[in-house]
Amino acid sequence: MKGKAIILLHCPDRQGIITDVTKFITENHGNIVYLDQHVDTVEKRLFMRIEWELDHFYVPREEIQRRIDDLFADRYQMQSNVYFDDDVPRMAIFVSRMSHCLYDLLARYYAGEWKVEIPCIISNHEDLRGVAQQFGIPYHVIVPGKSPEERLAAENRTMDLLRSERVNFVVLARYMQIIGDRMIAAYPHHIINIHHSFLPAFIGAKPYHQAYERGVKIIGATSHYVTGELDAGPIIEQDIVRISHKDTPESLVRKGRDLEKIVLSRAVTEHIERKILTYKNKTIIFG
Amino acid sequence: MKGKAIILLHCPDRQGIITDVTKFITENHGNIVYLDQHVDTVEKRLFMRIEWELDHFYVPREEIQRRIDDLFADRYQMQSNVYFDDDVPRMAIFVSRMSHCLYDLLARYYAGEWKVEIPCIISNHEDLRGVAQQFGIPYHVIVPGKSPEERLAAENRTMDLLRSERVNFVVLARYMQIIGDRMIAAYPHHIINIHHSFLPAFIGAKPYHQAYERGVKIIGATSHYVTGELDAGPIIEQDIVRISHKDTPESLVRKGRDLEKIVLSRAVTEHIERKILTYKNKTIIFG
Amino acid sequence: MKGKAIILLHCPDRQGIITDVTKFITENHGNIVYLDQHVDTVEKRLFMRIEWELDHFYVPREEIQRRIDDLFADRYQMQSNVYFDDDVPRMAIFVSRMSHCLYDLLARYYAGEWKVEIPCIISNHEDLRGVAQQFGIPYHVIVPGKSPEERLAAENRTMDLLRSERVNFVVLARYMQIIGDRMIAAYPHHIINIHHSFLPAFIGAKPYHQAYERGVKIIGATSHYVTGELDAGPIIEQDIVRISHKDTPESLVRKGRDLEKIVLSRAVTEHIERKILTYKNKTIIFG
Amino acid sequence: MKGKAIILLHCPDRQGIITDVTKFITENHGNIVYLDQHVDTVEKRLFMRIEWELDHFYVPREEIQRRIDDLFADRYQMQSNVYFDDDVPRMAIFVSRMSHCLYDLLARYYAGEWKVEIPCIISNHEDLRGVAQQFGIPYHVIVPGKSPEERLAAENRTMDLLRSERVNFVVLARYMQIIGDRMIAAYPHHIINIHHSFLPAFIGAKPYHQAYERGVKIIGATSHYVTGELDAGPIIEQDIVRISHKDTPESLVRKGRDLEKIVLSRAVTEHIERKILTYKNKTIIFG
Repeated sequence: MKGKAIILLHCPDRQGIITDVTKFITENHGNIVYLDQHVDTVEKRLFMRIEWELDHFYVPREEIQRRIDDLFADRYQMQSNVYFDDDVPRMAIFVSRMSHCLYDLLARYYAGEWKVEIPCIISNHEDLRGVAQQFGIPYHVIVPGKSPEERLAAENRTMDLLRSERVNFVVLARYMQIIGDRMIAAYPHHIINIHHSFLPAFIGAKPYHQAYERGVKIIGATSHYVTGELDAGPIIEQDIVRISHKDTPESLVRKGRDLEKIVLSRAVTEHIERKILTYKNKTIIFG
Repeated sequence: MKGKAIILLHCPDRQGIITDVTKFITENHGNIVYLDQHVDTVEKRLFMRIEWELDHFYVPREEIQRRIDDLFADRYQMQSNVYFDDDVPRMAIFVSRMSHCLYDLLARYYAGEWKVEIPCIISNHEDLRGVAQQFGIPYHVIVPGKSPEERLAAENRTMDLLRSERVNFVVLARYMQIIGDRMIAAYPHHIINIHHSFLPAFIGAKPYHQAYERGVKIIGATSHYVTGELDAGPIIEQDIVRISHKDTPESLVRKGRDLEKIVLSRAVTEHIERKILTYKNKTIIFG
Repeated sequence: MKGKAIILLHCPDRQGIITDVTKFITENHGNIVYLDQHVDTVEKRLFMRIEWELDHFYVPREEIQRRIDDLFADRYQMQSNVYFDDDVPRMAIFVSRMSHCLYDLLARYYAGEWKVEIPCIISNHEDLRGVAQQFGIPYHVIVPGKSPEERLAAENRTMDLLRSERVNFVVLARYMQIIGDRMIAAYPHHIINIHHSFLPAFIGAKPYHQAYERGVKIIGATSHYVTGELDAGPIIEQDIVRISHKDTPESLVRKGRDLEKIVLSRAVTEHIERKILTYKNKTIIFG
Repeated sequence: MKGKAIILLHCPDRQGIITDVTKFITENHGNIVYLDQHVDTVEKRLFMRIEWELDHFYVPREEIQRRIDDLFADRYQMQSNVYFDDDVPRMAIFVSRMSHCLYDLLARYYAGEWKVEIPCIISNHEDLRGVAQQFGIPYHVIVPGKSPEERLAAENRTMDLLRSERVNFVVLARYMQIIGDRMIAAYPHHIINIHHSFLPAFIGAKPYHQAYERGVKIIGATSHYVTGELDAGPIIEQDIVRISHKDTPESLVRKGRDLEKIVLSRAVTEHIERKILTYKNKTIIFG
């Protein structure tokens, strides 16, 4: 058995959990190569990420999750997910008209930075079909439409496509459409959005224009998981850039583009590498 | 005649203004050592800061403002203020219970970083009297009180004190009280506050706790001029620091302190050096 | 006559220069839309950038440079360059094996962020031919060779290609070869390199490994003009990212990639927009 | 038994260490409130910091270190240090003529930010005696002198003073003197210096002037432990600030001051809170 297993877990903080979990791994001849834990002293909750080599591990891959649940799920009220580093997740990209985030994602994909498959790009516009073609990735235009019936049909088509392509998570690379509740429910904490402001400042439309109006001296970008409430899901990454009175709304848009693509790609990296735990609308990002 | 004159001006943008103003200075044998201008292309307005040496300047100090007004005020609808670098402004500091900003201001003052006088410190608490005594600065406790009458009396006492001490501008160094409208009117764009968030995020009370609740990955501090609307005046300086899921409300308060004092002191420096123009709730900060 | 003219100039600082230059423009009915100047008080030298609209300008385009030289070159010992915003410069990209900077440059080019033409990509390796093909840009492999004769032949071929393609400036997008002196002389301050460290720290090869060995807590990237001395030319842009003891040489390489592409692209933007003046191995970057 | 124990340890990485150490603590009824570990995959070495509550801990305080050594020192070739959070370390401050770092340290001390005692300030100049008096801390002037004999005598006087004041660690708050080898040997990784550059750039004297000459776009400050080699000891913290062509050596000095005091104080905080492990000229800083 080759490769590595990764476990992300959380449970109420009690004595002995770290000892018990690491003992289970080492007694079964797993070599721990990464362990990081975090105790939220306000929530009194333990969060942990462990990575171990499977070369000499006694427990077969397909039984690891069950064994861990048997041992700890009830005893510690523990929620856990076991992943394997050679499981390659499948990621769909949603775009509208702006290409900067899409290029950044695809360039990383082609350079082999990520263990990920990108089976499809979905858009509400034709504009970026050429970019998809440059990289040989199927490009699907699904226009949400105006009426409730049209919107429902578009959502059905989208979800069918994601299902048939066995998509594990979705990246909204400046996709300027609201995601429907059914789709959010189907991909809980598996839809990553980039918002072009330093949330919670400037929620909603045209944040760079809002920033210009307010006269801020710093603008930002925020990647977060999509939830039912607009721009209010768990924040994954944020970054900022200094601006001045010399900036116009147009120059903010230009400066913001660099932020957006970097902040989105950092979130995608962490998601792919299973470094993110979410709890109560916040993220724990393991280093 | 020694020293330097500084002019801060703004007017609708038209051809020839820079030529005319610089011509006035150079023809009167002023040596320009600094000139920076900014054209706001949205507002179609010109903002300018010029600094020139007075050694051989033909126009007497006390006539410069009038001469400039005569030449340009009507012709260009120009608003201008002439300052002299040897005019030392008098600054009052308002504090409540936290000492970090106060120490930072007083340490700079004593080290001679600023051309400023600090004739008084005003507080609604006794706590920091010891700090004022360390630096030999008069410390006045004025408790705003609860009733409208008490509040009015306290405001009167405060304004009398500022007047008798010939205070030019006020620095709120974590002063946890609302400033009354009369005082704001008496010191328009001359009261500098430090708000412990990245405005406009987390307006109002306990911004670090708000930041913790929202799960942001970056916190900030904002210095701004006080206007009638809470935390909504022209922003002068902002800065940020990265945080993580490991931070508690307490550690945010601790990390924020360093931000607050630096961001407040930068604003005070720029104000003292006459580098700030305000227009329509925004600041132009000359470099 | 349409469009805008841009002048970049510098000369010993004396009274009246700004007045005289702006007077020349406004008296000829040019509308100044940008003026920024900088006086280096150590060098006693004035640097200025002015941008004006040509719609009603009396002086024909092709005579502007000569007229300015006639008026000011001798009188103020002024060196100046006049550009027109509709002159599209031609940029060659040199690459080796890494694609991240190349993709970032080409994505901006295709998105229309820059007024620039890219007639060719030159490499010492075949690796990135596919990327060039994705964007339909001619890709030339020129291997420098080992012997002095081979190196000379390769340099000749390179310079012939640049000449025949009428290349105005060169961008080294992680090109891992030393540029010869003849080529540096042919493109003075017109070859932009990205060095993957915070210069002057970690000059030369493998800077991320040097940074790892030294145990720094921040890594950086530096874009600069190439001169005869390795990694010592005028610095255009720098940026940094925090690292920690958790980082390996490999993770530094990964984190550095994002820095490199952003820092290189900022320099290219400023070069294309004629915002850079160089003087005595330093740059003045107008905002 | 009250309070908390903290252990900092490192050893060659092997299976079972985390399990064994945490088992020792939990089996003796210690409640782990913090655990962070780091495996250096290049050095194949494990670094760990654990903090646990002593309320119900079976092992008496004074035996904990011995018990841990008995169990793990030989078995895992483990080096460890046990601390108690109510042991208040004693810190000496060395200064020369600049007050900004000293004020920042003393203001934090007086505000109760740190669990530390400051029994003395040592200087080679009289200049800052007034600051020491403001805070009521004994101030000792020890002039190193020119001749080897004088230097030896001064070093002896300094070390006698540190010994008689039972000083645990030393902070060089812009102390512009070389520390002698004997003193470095007496306080290994217990002398914290602030260097006013982004090390390893600009080692030695006048780094801001060096930065100005080189034309960098960012300046920095570095706190590090003092070793025998100048400015080459293990780096603890670094930070930077953007500068531009408008900056002079004087403005760099001014901007640098804010960096220096913040970067020094962060290092002091981490040292006091026992968050730093050093190994082979690098630091591991636990979060």
